[in-house]
Amino acid sequence: MPVAKGEKLEKYEGLSPAQFFYRNKEIAGFSNPARALYQTVRELVENSLDATETYGILPNISVIVEPVNEDSEKIKVKVEDNGIGVPIKEVPNVFGKVFYGSKYVLRQTRGVFGLGVKMAVLYSQITTATPIYVKSSTQKSRIIYEYKLFIDIERNIPFILSLNVYKKKDSWHGTAVELVLRGNFSQVKKRVEEYIKRTALIAPYATISLKTPDGEIKFKRVSRKLPEPPKIGKYHPRGVDIETLKRLIRKSNSKMTLLDLLSTSFDGVGRITAEKFCEWAGFNPNIKIKKLNLSDLEKLANKMREYNGWRRPKSITLSPLGERLLKEGVKNILKPEFVTAVTRPPSSYGGNPFIVEVALGYGGEIPSSDAPLLLRFANRIPLLYDEGADVSKKVINSIDWNIYKIKFPAPLAIVTHVCSTKVPFKGVGKEAIADVPEVEKEIKIAIREAARRLKRHLSRIEKMFEIKRREVTIKRYMNEVSRSLSYISGIEEEKLKDLLLRILKEDIKRRESSKAGEKIVKKAIVSR
Amino acid sequence: MPVAKGEKLEKYEGLSPAQFFYRNKEIAGFSNPARALYQTVRELVENSLDATETYGILPNISVIVEPVNEDSEKIKVKVEDNGIGVPIKEVPNVFGKVFYGSKYVLRQTRGVFGLGVKMAVLYSQITTATPIYVKSSTQKSRIIYEYKLFIDIERNIPFILSLNVYKKKDSWHGTAVELVLRGNFSQVKKRVEEYIKRTALIAPYATISLKTPDGEIKFKRVSRKLPEPPKIGKYHPRGVDIETLKRLIRKSNSKMTLLDLLSTSFDGVGRITAEKFCEWAGFNPNIKIKKLNLSDLEKLANKMREYNGWRRPKSITLSPLGERLLKEGVKNILKPEFVTAVTRPPSSYGGNPFIVEVALGYGGEIPSSDAPLLLRFANRIPLLYDEGADVSKKVINSIDWNIYKIKFPAPLAIVTHVCSTKVPFKGVGKEAIADVPEVEKEIKIAIREAARRLKRHLSRIEKMFEIKRREVTIKRYMNEVSRSLSYISGIEEEKLKDLLLRILKEDIKRRESSKAGEKIVKKAIVSR
Repeated sequence: MPVAKGEKLEKYEGLSPAQFFYRNKEIAGFSNPARALYQTVRELVENSLDATETYGILPNISVIVEPVNEDSEKIKVKVEDNGIGVPIKEVPNVFGKVFYGSKYVLRQTRGVFGLGVKMAVLYSQITTATPIYVKSSTQKSRIIYEYKLFIDIERNIPFILSLNVYKKKDSWHGTAVELVLRGNFSQVKKRVEEYIKRTALIAPYATISLKTPDGEIKFKRVSRKLPEPPKIGKYHPRGVDIETLKRLIRKSNSKMTLLDLLSTSFDGVGRITAEKFCEWAGFNPNIKIKKLNLSDLEKLANKMREYNGWRRPKSITLSPLGERLLKEGVKNILKPEFVTAVTRPPSSYGGNPFIVEVALGYGGEIPSSDAPLLLRFANRIPLLYDEGADVSKKVINSIDWNIYKIKFPAPLAIVTHVCSTKVPFKGVGKEAIADVPEVEKEIKIAIREAARRLKRHLSRIEKMFEIKRREVTIKRYMNEVSRSLSYISGIEEEKLKDLLLRILKEDIKRRESSKAGEKIVKKAIVSR
Repeated sequence: MPVAKGEKLEKYEGLSPAQFFYRNKEIAGFSNPARALYQTVRELVENSLDATETYGILPNISVIVEPVNEDSEKIKVKVEDNGIGVPIKEVPNVFGKVFYGSKYVLRQTRGVFGLGVKMAVLYSQITTATPIYVKSSTQKSRIIYEYKLFIDIERNIPFILSLNVYKKKDSWHGTAVELVLRGNFSQVKKRVEEYIKRTALIAPYATISLKTPDGEIKFKRVSRKLPEPPKIGKYHPRGVDIETLKRLIRKSNSKMTLLDLLSTSFDGVGRITAEKFCEWAGFNPNIKIKKLNLSDLEKLANKMREYNGWRRPKSITLSPLGERLLKEGVKNILKPEFVTAVTRPPSSYGGNPFIVEVALGYGGEIPSSDAPLLLRFANRIPLLYDEGADVSKKVINSIDWNIYKIKFPAPLAIVTHVCSTKVPFKGVGKEAIADVPEVEKEIKIAIREAARRLKRHLSRIEKMFEIKRREVTIKRYMNEVSRSLSYISGIEEEKLKDLLLRILKEDIKRRESSKAGEKIVKKAIVSR
């Protein structure tokens, strides 16, 4: 093709995924030596939790952060778990190839991107030229293997420096990882500790220890009951896009009908539901899916999104905390006067099921401030950075708290927990959740429900206060009234006083019982 | 290797970059139909600006957003520019391959990731099954070519549906792009308009029109003077990492010495600077670089970061607005009573030069609020989302404004502009800048400098106010005093009044001239 000589043209090139993230470390949370250290610790801890609790193993996790010799910015991070281990042939890719992993399935896990630990490896090798050390063994394997490896950044493949294999002498299984990076521990100490603390709180079945130059903190498990592990599931039909349909059709055989596809590939869709949908949407259920063209697929995706007859997604892929555990958590950390929790039923966006949980604490040891104190969790990961960009913050800012009798400054804390097979994080650093409309709506409903409960509590407090005030007022005049009555009636003063006190007590009792109280108020209104 | 049967193991897989971003659209700003539409418009406009102003062409950009037939959520976006065009053989990859582009060089451009337009293509094809239409021609080419293409998501390669080539009849060059996606225009109308408006303001040499169902807005260029286009540069030696050193060494021949490497590969480093550095760092300048081992490279990278003798990075790769233009911009948008601007000298992080510019507006039409109004720009891109996660917000929150005589609520607006060959965006959606320490420090210095100027202005205002008050007071008693003086002296009352008025005027003049005012104050202090 004719391109004239000497013309100003741009220079084009392609990057490997590893090159891309090497150039754009900030995107994955590795923006400076302090933050990189924080991010390294959390990526390793989250991998360890995924490798244990997801498979029914009570987690034992040890974290060590220590400077290497005299250089205080050269930090060794070591994390060991008792998880299911990484198979020997997968270790190189799992630690040395960006966009490779086991988390690309429909199931709630802390890890999702297949990126975090690779970023930690990358950051180590470019700041200290030290390879990652990995020791692992799976549960039934008879060997233990140790790798040292770098990432070949330009080609996005692992570069193995050494592999040692030896026989297992005991029943140890799990993974131990060691990295050396330039990190600033003093700047990020508080955050790391807070992260471990909040993790321990949301995973009370785990034993986690953190050893640093300042000493050791150990959180022992307070429960041996693991929550039901999440299972791998199917896409929910609402919000499935054209690409997903194309992929399913590509994989299917030529005899498959639309009815077959709908009733075998999607969550909660049987033949009856599929038939009803086809009728509603104007599709022939017996059409061979290989015959559908692009505009059919567009119509199908649109209709599937608009249809109201789908069942709510099943929650087998998810593992929410539940209202009881969430309330316990809030009581433990925040020690409020009042606490309530709401676990919403499962919902979905883009085919991904999710559950929103919200807890609301008021009073007690919660400090008064001009805005609610917000504690965010996603798939049991505490989110400590970037609150301002999070959907929960957006929802909280949009609520008129006066409706719920809350006037700031107030001692109000809100905990939000979004569980999903794919939490819509805004960045691969996993710090803020995007404002996907479905998720935003669920958070809003949950917070409002919790806030209504708080309002009832505050109203009750108000009423109790009113009753108390009434009691005090009446008691103040009791002697006077008894004396006057005694003078008029001739009945003994003490007797009258006892009688009046009894009447007052009964009246208070009646008013204090909430329902009776409401009746009294209603009667008063009616009788006007 | 022995892996026991029936063992619980995870399922591992790799993803292509296109698959990764298809699954994680939120990360690139495509979180919902409204946001996706906004993001599509801005990615296309930013590409158009890069293809014109970077090459000395005065930009003419037309943007059309319109619904396709009766479906109000099926939106066509069309953007055309008069830029340098994309060479015919590059079109497929530029629009159909994630991590491919022309922006991976050391030069300030709006685009950086080689991702934005591909995300728009991806979003179109998965929501409406419509391919992207691209028409382009380079400046000296005699042909125009039209492509229609999809992205093969699993393989991350373009899938070309059609290519038409025809002879050019006029001298047209540039690129026109058309996409059809599910988008919600009414929800995002204001943001799109604001984006175009702010873009026009920061690029006063561009003509940009926006046509929507609600009518056409056109911003004509107010200047034909293009800023000096940025040039492609070298890495700055401070903060270069081990990976960069390895890459440079791999590319060099076996005779190259450390002195050669330092004095040819880095910004602002000649042989003398390189020799001084080697002496300071304890390196033999004549060592062959191929002989350096990993621990040498670690030491070299550390020493290069610590060395204080490097020159400031050259700013040829950057294209800041400059204080004058920035002040003009602020005057035009915000109409403040007072405005000042600070353009900092170039600095660098991780080898990437950057310049911070800050403008500060006070009073006038700026509304009073509890916190400063913040307008953020990065490489002349207006940033409208995720303010809470931005480094500028962090800096502003950390400043004690009382020091600068500002008490909130106050009518204070702050504009920050970070120009860099690589702006450290927090996400590939390019909405917030990460808190890289070097950038944070520069923003802080610039805001403080601007705030000090504002303080001087406020002090002056205070003094002027004091002078005015004095004038009013004196004038109030002027008649009384003249009459009394006239009575005592026998001089005509009117004459005395004129004289007194003249003295007063001179006194005010002297006080108003700032320096004289200061002198008076100093005298007053000395004479005590």
